[in-house]
Amino acid sequence: MTIPIFHAIGFVRSPYVRRIDAPHQPTVVEGLETGAVAEAWIDLDPALPPEAWCDLAGFERIWLIFVFHKSEGWKPKVKPPRGKGKRSVFATRSPHRPNALGLSAVELLAVEDHRLHVRGVDLLDGTPVLDIKPYVPYSDAFPHAKAGWIDEVDALTGLCFAPGPRKPR
Amino acid sequence: MTIPIFHAIGFVRSPYVRRIDAPHQPTVVEGLETGAVAEAWIDLDPALPPEAWCDLAGFERIWLIFVFHKSEGWKPKVKPPRGKGKRSVFATRSPHRPNALGLSAVELLAVEDHRLHVRGVDLLDGTPVLDIKPYVPYSDAFPHAKAGWIDEVDALTGLCFAPGPRKPR
Repeated sequence: MTIPIFHAIGFVRSPYVRRIDAPHQPTVVEGLETGAVAEAWIDLDPALPPEAWCDLAGFERIWLIFVFHKSEGWKPKVKPPRGKGKRSVFATRSPHRPNALGLSAVELLAVEDHRLHVRGVDLLDGTPVLDIKPYVPYSDAFPHAKAGWIDEVDALTGLCFAPGPRKPR
Repeated sequence: MTIPIFHAIGFVRSPYVRRIDAPHQPTVVEGLETGAVAEAWIDLDPALPPEAWCDLAGFERIWLIFVFHKSEGWKPKVKPPRGKGKRSVFATRSPHRPNALGLSAVELLAVEDHRLHVRGVDLLDGTPVLDIKPYVPYSDAFPHAKAGWIDEVDALTGLCFAPGPRKPR
């Protein structure tokens, strides 16, 4: 089985230029020292016809599947921002994974001409976007799903989000 | 910006051999004529060390990012199973998208030796898996997010899920 070659359908335009600037999770930015929830744009490939995305209007959130383009290889265990120890890379959202793919549910503010205005983005400026999907609560929202080691750390710390940006490794 | 070449970190072993056999969304299988919620396995690449995934134990759900390996090209508008009209491909979960990437939040039943036992899978047997991430409610669960045209169709039909399998195009 050959995996197809993917291409960017768009690029993120965000205020985060360096990895150290970006929060670890898009939805918790308000809880961080970095301040306000960042707004950003997805500049879509000019070759894509508007029919391909116009029906996104009315969706409150969209999924972005993107490339962690600053990722440099991976290790089986990584040190996440939450807690003290190392964790299995597939049990984290670390950028340093075998396939450097990222996933974020961001707020969709407006559908514009060849770009999407979004909020809650933790993505670096220039991030290549591979896919956009609608956020559909009945298939995507499981607010009570147990979250393994993350629940354990949160129970110890009394927090329910990761700490602010740290120096990248 | 060059998009890296991705490779399968595992393959789905499921009861769905043909596209016509698979339900449209993993979490709604109970609502379909096809009956029970399917169990399946993700056979992980034997070259991956167990440290890379063992901390997934304790997570109730995991995200699978996978390749729609039977997808054959794409069009800007597709006919989703829900409702009557065509919709923008990026406003649907159709397999026929510019980058044939799929996304499912499946139940994790057990972490075994080089495989994960899962439930709620709508994936075809042999589907290449590119990434596994933990399902984390605080960043992934938005149960009240408005869902555009899907909400409109559901309001008209009184249903909150898509109908059963149909003949693939």
